[in-house]
Amino acid sequence: MSKVYSIGLDYGTQSGRAVLLDLETGEIIAQAVKEYPHGVMDERLPDGTKLPPDWALEHPQDYLDVLGETIPAVLSQSGVAPEQVIGLSIDFTACTMMPVDKAGTPLCLMPEYEHIPNAWLKLWKHHAAQAQANRLNAVAEERGEDFLKRYGGKISSEWMLPKIMQVLEESPEIYDTADRFIEAADWVTMQLTGEEARNSCTAGYKALWHKRNGYPSKDFLKALDPRLENMVEEKLPGAIHPQGAKAGEICEKAAKLTGLCPGTAVAVANVDAHVSIPAVGITQPGKVLMIMGTSTCHILLGEEEKLVPGMCGVVEDGVLPGFFGYEAGQSCVGDHFEWCVKNCVPPAYFEEAKEKGMNIHGLLTEKANLLKPGESGLLALDWWNGNRSVLVDVDLTGMILGMTLTTKPEEIYRALIEATAFGTRIILENFEENGIPVNELYACGGIAKKNPMMMQIYADVTGKEIFIGKSDQAPALGSAMFGAVAAGKERGGFDTIFEAAEAIGRVEDVSYKPDREAGAVYDKLYAEFKTLHDYFGKGGNDVMKRLKVLKAEARG
Amino acid sequence: MSKVYSIGLDYGTQSGRAVLLDLETGEIIAQAVKEYPHGVMDERLPDGTKLPPDWALEHPQDYLDVLGETIPAVLSQSGVAPEQVIGLSIDFTACTMMPVDKAGTPLCLMPEYEHIPNAWLKLWKHHAAQAQANRLNAVAEERGEDFLKRYGGKISSEWMLPKIMQVLEESPEIYDTADRFIEAADWVTMQLTGEEARNSCTAGYKALWHKRNGYPSKDFLKALDPRLENMVEEKLPGAIHPQGAKAGEICEKAAKLTGLCPGTAVAVANVDAHVSIPAVGITQPGKVLMIMGTSTCHILLGEEEKLVPGMCGVVEDGVLPGFFGYEAGQSCVGDHFEWCVKNCVPPAYFEEAKEKGMNIHGLLTEKANLLKPGESGLLALDWWNGNRSVLVDVDLTGMILGMTLTTKPEEIYRALIEATAFGTRIILENFEENGIPVNELYACGGIAKKNPMMMQIYADVTGKEIFIGKSDQAPALGSAMFGAVAAGKERGGFDTIFEAAEAIGRVEDVSYKPDREAGAVYDKLYAEFKTLHDYFGKGGNDVMKRLKVLKAEARG
Repeated sequence: MSKVYSIGLDYGTQSGRAVLLDLETGEIIAQAVKEYPHGVMDERLPDGTKLPPDWALEHPQDYLDVLGETIPAVLSQSGVAPEQVIGLSIDFTACTMMPVDKAGTPLCLMPEYEHIPNAWLKLWKHHAAQAQANRLNAVAEERGEDFLKRYGGKISSEWMLPKIMQVLEESPEIYDTADRFIEAADWVTMQLTGEEARNSCTAGYKALWHKRNGYPSKDFLKALDPRLENMVEEKLPGAIHPQGAKAGEICEKAAKLTGLCPGTAVAVANVDAHVSIPAVGITQPGKVLMIMGTSTCHILLGEEEKLVPGMCGVVEDGVLPGFFGYEAGQSCVGDHFEWCVKNCVPPAYFEEAKEKGMNIHGLLTEKANLLKPGESGLLALDWWNGNRSVLVDVDLTGMILGMTLTTKPEEIYRALIEATAFGTRIILENFEENGIPVNELYACGGIAKKNPMMMQIYADVTGKEIFIGKSDQAPALGSAMFGAVAAGKERGGFDTIFEAAEAIGRVEDVSYKPDREAGAVYDKLYAEFKTLHDYFGKGGNDVMKRLKVLKAEARG
Repeated sequence: MSKVYSIGLDYGTQSGRAVLLDLETGEIIAQAVKEYPHGVMDERLPDGTKLPPDWALEHPQDYLDVLGETIPAVLSQSGVAPEQVIGLSIDFTACTMMPVDKAGTPLCLMPEYEHIPNAWLKLWKHHAAQAQANRLNAVAEERGEDFLKRYGGKISSEWMLPKIMQVLEESPEIYDTADRFIEAADWVTMQLTGEEARNSCTAGYKALWHKRNGYPSKDFLKALDPRLENMVEEKLPGAIHPQGAKAGEICEKAAKLTGLCPGTAVAVANVDAHVSIPAVGITQPGKVLMIMGTSTCHILLGEEEKLVPGMCGVVEDGVLPGFFGYEAGQSCVGDHFEWCVKNCVPPAYFEEAKEKGMNIHGLLTEKANLLKPGESGLLALDWWNGNRSVLVDVDLTGMILGMTLTTKPEEIYRALIEATAFGTRIILENFEENGIPVNELYACGGIAKKNPMMMQIYADVTGKEIFIGKSDQAPALGSAMFGAVAAGKERGGFDTIFEAAEAIGRVEDVSYKPDREAGAVYDKLYAEFKTLHDYFGKGGNDVMKRLKVLKAEARG
């Protein structure tokens, strides 16, 4: 048998990336990126129609362009023949959804609807369905709906149901015309295979689907809006497939578009964070993966369904088949440091960085690294973008205290890093207090690779060893691994994602081990953090919310 | 009678300034500044002897150089003849003190002592007597000494008694050799008149002197150190003169040094903040003067002695004769904004300021001025340098909350300004709650003249009209006015400082009137400020102190 490969496609917010995975060596041997030609549309539709505030749309054709350009590119870069590619799959941002007709054609691509904003594909960060989310939460809480508990007590405006409600309320003709609503992840997979196979990850984490109980009940949906009573049968049809399942095979049309052979196996789609779990080799409970970027997503496997307050979701088969996948999150990690650098660092530091040929983050890290735990005298609450887990409160805001006239920018920078580490420890302890053990930490994403000081602080603060995912492209790698599982062992792939994870998932040789002395100081700082976390976050003093109200009033 | 003039001399930390006041028009017609040749000595004595940390000394000869250069300069600039100058007086930083021999010669100017640091003049900001101050406070508290209440419950290491204790403990030979200890203010006055006349302002605010009870008791001093039992008779002799009293007349030696005529009247010395009261025309209770610079000093007259918690001091005759002068303070005002500009403002702002030909404070103020009250969503505690009034706690530190990813530097800058305004309101309410009415605010000092936005915020936050002292040189002007009082009406001056204040004290034509709408928002923000002030400052959560301990431990 000649060498075999699989392809993973990672669809981000601005671009899509393909990687070609050598299934023998476990190495990525080619990559290609395609920026979305239309980008994020948050001001106007392609025809010039103006969008209200908080909208964020994308163009489905851009996703097909990614297929049509990046797959041929990795084949030609590597010299791998199409027949050597045995499988592929994709991961996506979520909930990124749209209305389609019976044939699966997006309504926004039809001339009669292209001028209607609600006909378009709503990107994950479309935030214009907040009113709907608020109503959804109020009704669910009033009715004591069980599903709320699986999602930390609050449903985000970014998710499927508020987005559907917005279509129904603002553009009932689009709601009526739509044959169904579909995640972009599943739609792109359908473009590859010619058949629809919805995945349990997006359905579970973003559309309130539960393996045993299904979607929210007709009664609940009717209470939301009588027109929604039969929404599930009418607009969200079809079986939900566990992660690791095969969605189908490359159809003739897709073969033409991508250059792959008809019949190549395609796995059901994934969400970009969750798909990274096998890429770092995690196959069992007790290991938390932190996907660290502008925000951090925490994924953990469990043997049972426990209701953990403040988590983002728990979904059976949602990450790896046979396990309950738990998700938690911190809304502001890289964004936090970026804010600091853009707003709180004086010219002399930029000049020094330039002289040393470093970027500003590098310089601040170098200076912050000279400080001992506790030495800055500062303590921050990392809520610049609200708090996702465990407080689930977007109205919380940032705080920092301990400043004196000698406080330096690198001290503030380090205090912000430490705050995110304390926030992570709150999340880990919350899992443990609710019966989900956490033994080890894994990290992937840009920050995990680039900032050893930060990872050491996380190890010291949490008291846990941290392993770093080896690949720079964990999501695309994970997708390629799922593709190889869809192909199966006989064709040179794997029978299960567990086998794939063991064979290919890797971490760096060097891990971060907690330092006992630093940990002792951080235990004290963490106790202070927790007191302030509860005081400002759990009703001791709701000053942050009241200030937000005053701010909104001042801005009219 | 030909036109008459008086001279005021304002001794600051780095330089001394003389102004020549036209007593007919009330205008300053000439000014001269002399930098101290030796400056602040905080590393070495003039002979090279190294100083320990926290020391700050000055050279008495520098003060004489100020007399010898600035007085002839203002005479020659203006063409005023010496005989037209009818009086003068000085104001000084305090407690700035030294040991002298019987003739009044500073021990540090004698070759046998010049190598001994404790023989030197200790500047107000000499902070090396903290251990002594701590012991003094502990003993006074344990014994329930009444005087503590007049000083907000805590004596600063900057004051006279800790500085004397340090001399006694570290250099007993200097303590024994010294005929007495004297404030630099009184010493310079003595150089002018040839006779000693100590003033009630420095004695009262900085040396624990009380008009009825005198200095702390022998019993207390003995408890501090048996060698101190008779310290008052032995080392702090002589009567204390009320502000407004005449100290004497220019002696032959001083006439030679300054070019003034022998016999010219000299008033007792003042402290730089307190002397500004008549310069803005305040002659009655109910009017608080804020002297605004790196820190803010609040001076207020009262009819009776009330014990106001957290004030810096109350002294009968300490500001104007016949009244009780109350002092309160905020440790961090201009310093606060300077910290912000040096540490928290990005390069783009400096570039914009340069393009617009503004300084960076001007640019930040321009931008902050576009914000409405409450619009930033931020709230700060202005404790970057601890809190003087009303908490009297140097271990408190700064706090800011409400940050989001869109928080801008000008919002932080404005929040810091607002925090100092809230801190002022706490001080004013504290006076009122303790039976000292406050009807109007006056402000002088650089900030008061230069930042209308800030003064409007203060008016809106406090709900009180604010008048701005007209002179840029309020202390020196006040001193010149006291000089004219020492001369008396017959010679063309004034019989009382009240007459002088009415004739010459002036405020700007434009005052800042509170805006009702802004005030309503600030009332809400102030309520939040007060809650956090009490939570962090009155034992609700002593996190700031615990962080300071961890910081000290980390620094070893």
